Amino acid sequence: MDEWKYARSNHTGKENHKYNSGGRVKFRVNAPKETSVTNSFRDSSEMKKGDDGAWYGYTRPLDEGFHYYTINIDGADVPDPNSMFFYGSSRWGSAVEIPAKDRDFYALKNVPHGQLREINYVAKSSNANRHAFVYTPPDYEKDTNKRYPVLYLQHGAGEDETGWGRQGHAGLIMDNLLAEGKAQPFLIVMENGAGIGFGGGRGRGPGATNATPVAGATTNAAPGRGGFGGRGGFNFSAFEKVVVDDLVPYIDANFRTIADQPHRALAGLSMGGMQTRTIGLAHLDQFSHLGIFSGGNIGLTNITDQATFKQKVKLVFMSYGSKENGSAGAKAAAEALQQAGINGVYYESPNTAHEWLSWRRSLYQFAPLLFKN
Amino acid sequence: MDEWKYARSNHTGKENHKYNSGGRVKFRVNAPKETSVTNSFRDSSEMKKGDDGAWYGYTRPLDEGFHYYTINIDGADVPDPNSMFFYGSSRWGSAVEIPAKDRDFYALKNVPHGQLREINYVAKSSNANRHAFVYTPPDYEKDTNKRYPVLYLQHGAGEDETGWGRQGHAGLIMDNLLAEGKAQPFLIVMENGAGIGFGGGRGRGPGATNATPVAGATTNAAPGRGGFGGRGGFNFSAFEKVVVDDLVPYIDANFRTIADQPHRALAGLSMGGMQTRTIGLAHLDQFSHLGIFSGGNIGLTNITDQATFKQKVKLVFMSYGSKENGSAGAKAAAEALQQAGINGVYYESPNTAHEWLSWRRSLYQFAPLLFKN
Repeated sequence: MDEWKYARSNHTGKENHKYNSGGRVKFRVNAPKETSVTNSFRDSSEMKKGDDGAWYGYTRPLDEGFHYYTINIDGADVPDPNSMFFYGSSRWGSAVEIPAKDRDFYALKNVPHGQLREINYVAKSSNANRHAFVYTPPDYEKDTNKRYPVLYLQHGAGEDETGWGRQGHAGLIMDNLLAEGKAQPFLIVMENGAGIGFGGGRGRGPGATNATPVAGATTNAAPGRGGFGGRGGFNFSAFEKVVVDDLVPYIDANFRTIADQPHRALAGLSMGGMQTRTIGLAHLDQFSHLGIFSGGNIGLTNITDQATFKQKVKLVFMSYGSKENGSAGAKAAAEALQQAGINGVYYESPNTAHEWLSWRRSLYQFAPLLFKN
Repeated sequence: MDEWKYARSNHTGKENHKYNSGGRVKFRVNAPKETSVTNSFRDSSEMKKGDDGAWYGYTRPLDEGFHYYTINIDGADVPDPNSMFFYGSSRWGSAVEIPAKDRDFYALKNVPHGQLREINYVAKSSNANRHAFVYTPPDYEKDTNKRYPVLYLQHGAGEDETGWGRQGHAGLIMDNLLAEGKAQPFLIVMENGAGIGFGGGRGRGPGATNATPVAGATTNAAPGRGGFGGRGGFNFSAFEKVVVDDLVPYIDANFRTIADQPHRALAGLSMGGMQTRTIGLAHLDQFSHLGIFSGGNIGLTNITDQATFKQKVKLVFMSYGSKENGSAGAKAAAEALQQAGINGVYYESPNTAHEWLSWRRSLYQFAPLLFKN
C-alpha cells in the first residue's frame, strides 16, 4: 500500500502527484508563503506544509479511474499547475488518473490506430460556426469506396466535445476493439451538447469555437448559457435541431457514411444520455441504436408506439456505475424491454460512481453491440 | 483607450480578463485571503486587492497577438483559472490574446474548412509510440484520387505538437488562403520536436503521449528531457531520425501524398527553425522548401555545395518579428542567397517580438510560396 507511483495525469516535468495501490493520491503543491492550501476531494481535502515549503495532502482511497479536482490556495480556487488539463465541471482544470485494473482496454497499444479529427462546420439552423470531433477507424483511408455507420456520442453537463477524445479515450477503446475483431468499424461524432448559445471560446482555443455566429449574419444563438431549461430540467430543443438539421446532414455529406437509420446510433453519458432519450425517441426514423450511460433509462412507459419502436430500434443500451443511484431503475427498464420483445441491454460498471471509468467501460460494452447486421 | 473588451482567450463563463485598444490587459483574479497576487508580465506584474475581494492588475501596453502568462499567489505559480489552456513555456497554462488589426487572416470564417487530425503512430527507429497532428485541406475528402504535397511544421522550445493547431491557428490560416486561391492545397504535419525522450504524458491526455515505449519493447528514448544538448546548443539527432526514418515514411504510407522531394517542405519557429536548418541541410534529397521563423538563418556559409543546393532547394524563407534580434542577419542572408541565384525570401512581421503573431504571419506569407513548381 505504501508504494507511491506517479500518476499519468501528471504534467511532464512536473511529476508532483502520486497514487498507491489503495487508490489514495498524494499531492505536492509548491506554495511556500500560504497559510492554507486544500484540494477539492471530499473528506480528504486537508494539506499540510512540508519541510521543503511545499504543501502535501493525501486523499481518501478513491475509485479507480479519472477524477476532476481543484486546488484552493488561501481561498483562491486554481487548477493544480502540475496536472494536465481537461474540460469538465465547466472549466479547463486538473484531474488525476488512478489506473484501473482493467485499463488495458483503453491503453495505447501497437495496433492500427484511427484518427481523431477536429472539424469546423456551419449550422444553418442557427447560422453559427460549430466545432466537433470525428473518430475515423484505422481502415477508413485504406479503401476509399467503403462506407461506414455512425455513432453520435455525447458528453455530460459541464463537459464539452473534447471529453470523449481526451478523458474518455474513445479512439483508443475503438482501436483496441477493432484490433481484436470485437466490433464493426464505424465513425464516432462528438459535438458540444451544452454549447448551444455559448458565446465564448472553448475546446480549441480562440478563433474556432462553439458557437460563434457566422460573420455578417444574425444568429439564433443567444449569448450566455442558453440551451438549458430551468432548475430541475434541461431543454434540449436547440441541440436537437443542430443534431438533426445540421450535424447529421453535414457528416453524411462530408464523410463516407451509410446514411440511413439502420446505420446511425445515438448515445451519451449523464446529460448526454438524457439528450439521447429525448432526441432519440423523437427521431426513431433517424437512429436505430440508443445508448444511455449514467443518464436515466428508457422504460416501456416512454414508448408511445411499441410496434413501431420494436421495428425501428435494434438496441437500447443502458448502464450505470455500481455506486450510482439509478442502476436498479435502468436494469428493470432493460428487463421490461426484453419482455416486450425489444433488445434492452443493461450493463453495470463494477465499483465506480458517476465518473469516466464508468463511461469508458460503457462504451467498451456498447460498441460491440452496434451495427451487427 | 478606456473601452475594455473581453479577450477571446477568456474561459467561457469566467470572463475575467479584458483588453483595450492600447494593448493593455486588465486581470481579475478571485483570491480573497491572499496578501500578494502578481502576474508574470514584465514591468506590470503588480496586482491590487479590489473592494470585492478580488485582485486586479493592469499590464503595460502589450504587442498585438498571443502572450503566455502565469499568476502568482503568495509565491505559488499557478495558471489563471479564467484562461483557456495552451502548451508553452513547458507547461499547460494561461495566455491572453490581444486581437491584431490584421487578425482577419486567421479568423474562423464561413469558408470550406480542412480537418486537424490527431494521429498515433509507432516510430520504429526508437520503438516508441508517438503522437502528431495532420492538417488536411478542405478538398482532401472530395477527390480521393488526388495526391498532395506536405509541409512538416515545427513548434518552438517549451511547446509541443499542439502549438500550431491551437495558438498558431495553422488550419484557419490555410482555410482562408485556400478560399482566396492564394495557396496550393497541401498537408501540414505537426510533430513534437522536443518530445524525444520525454517520458510523461502530454498533448492529448493520459494514454496517448509522446513518446511512450511500445508495450513489451525496449526503447531508445531515455527518460527526462532527452534530445537537448548542453547549454548553448541543441542536439536534434534523435528528432532528425524520427522525421526522416519514421514520420515521413508513415505520412507517405497513410495519407495521399506526393511522396517526393519536390513536394515536401520543412519549416518551424524558433527551435523548430533551427531544426529545419539542421535537418533540412542534411537531407536535401528529402525537402525542397525550407522555412525558418524567428530561428536564425541559412546563409551562404551554411551551404557546402552551392550547385547541388541551387538545384535541389526551391525556396529558403526566413522571417523575424521586427522587435527581435536576428532580423538583420536573416535579411542579409536572404539577399546573399538571391545574389547567388538561390530563392531566398525574407519577411518581417511589423511590431511583433518572439511570439505567435510573428509566426502566424510567417506561415501566411510562407504558404503561398510553396509548391508553385
